[in-house]
Amino acid sequence: MKRVLVCLAPGFEEIEALTVVDVLRRGGVEVIVGGTIEGPIEGRSGISVLADMSLDEIDAERLDMIVLPGGMPGATNLKEDLRVQDIVQSLHKRGKYIAAICAAPTVLSALGLLEGKRVTSFPSVKDQLSETDYREERVVVDGNLITSRSPGTAMEFAMKLLELLCGREVMEKVNQGVMAKLSPSD
Amino acid sequence: MKRVLVCLAPGFEEIEALTVVDVLRRGGVEVIVGGTIEGPIEGRSGISVLADMSLDEIDAERLDMIVLPGGMPGATNLKEDLRVQDIVQSLHKRGKYIAAICAAPTVLSALGLLEGKRVTSFPSVKDQLSETDYREERVVVDGNLITSRSPGTAMEFAMKLLELLCGREVMEKVNQGVMAKLSPSD
Repeated sequence: MKRVLVCLAPGFEEIEALTVVDVLRRGGVEVIVGGTIEGPIEGRSGISVLADMSLDEIDAERLDMIVLPGGMPGATNLKEDLRVQDIVQSLHKRGKYIAAICAAPTVLSALGLLEGKRVTSFPSVKDQLSETDYREERVVVDGNLITSRSPGTAMEFAMKLLELLCGREVMEKVNQGVMAKLSPSD
Repeated sequence: MKRVLVCLAPGFEEIEALTVVDVLRRGGVEVIVGGTIEGPIEGRSGISVLADMSLDEIDAERLDMIVLPGGMPGATNLKEDLRVQDIVQSLHKRGKYIAAICAAPTVLSALGLLEGKRVTSFPSVKDQLSETDYREERVVVDGNLITSRSPGTAMEFAMKLLELLCGREVMEKVNQGVMAKLSPSD
């Protein structure tokens, strides 16, 4: 079974984070919601969520993917978290999937992982990604790197992550089950 | 300011519930997340959310809308909750908005509110809505009644609720801000 870490920090964007958790679990992926702090974590829209565990407890070597939601100050909190940095670097070295949406691609940029890479992001942080091959697309895949733009692209982002982890057939089945309007490949 | 209650019961569908909370709050609506139980409430995909308050504390007379998310057994738990029944009846009597998605239109059907009404739902519960004027559309509005189908229609549902509460201009602004693919009226 594939194992995915979705990171939550105070100020995370709720739709971006939780759509991914929901869709991947529907596809049979083991999703760990890992929190930067103990106790309830409040998102940017005031919804408080309990993480499954602290990032202190994460074994990066056993992950197939990390997902970084956007939202402010959630993305800034992720960027400044040494554990997030270490886990991302561990996945990068092993060629595993690294996914970021909205403002969160800036977390990867700060680690020097995006130079020359095809990426997208929330439009307002585009200027912080000047070293990239920036695309105005809703979901962008470049090798093991997946980026997306906003709460409104979260469902397409989640479906693309599921397709990469479990194949097109599983993704299509979940896509039909939740009646998402478009598969990311359409 | 418009005041909306989103009800959470154990087994609620996370995308359906939280997309509505997030989108409405972005539009300036006062959203109360009301729980059927105390403490963290676990959704059908295993995400635990803290409600803002218990349904015991809700003053139905001050609400402009109630939103019932789907998910199982979340919708069944809502159906069996006397407080949910009372709040829905209060809103119905005052002609205020009543919104339900996925399996949750069955909560309204059990209260006898859907006879002859244009509604939709998750396809698997269509048989429980035989008294209605059932539509295979993603979001259906009939007077003060708004229904929708699934996690994949939650964004369109949320945008329609925002449009009804705050007008088309506010909805379009939020829609552009989150980069949702389609407005519900397109």
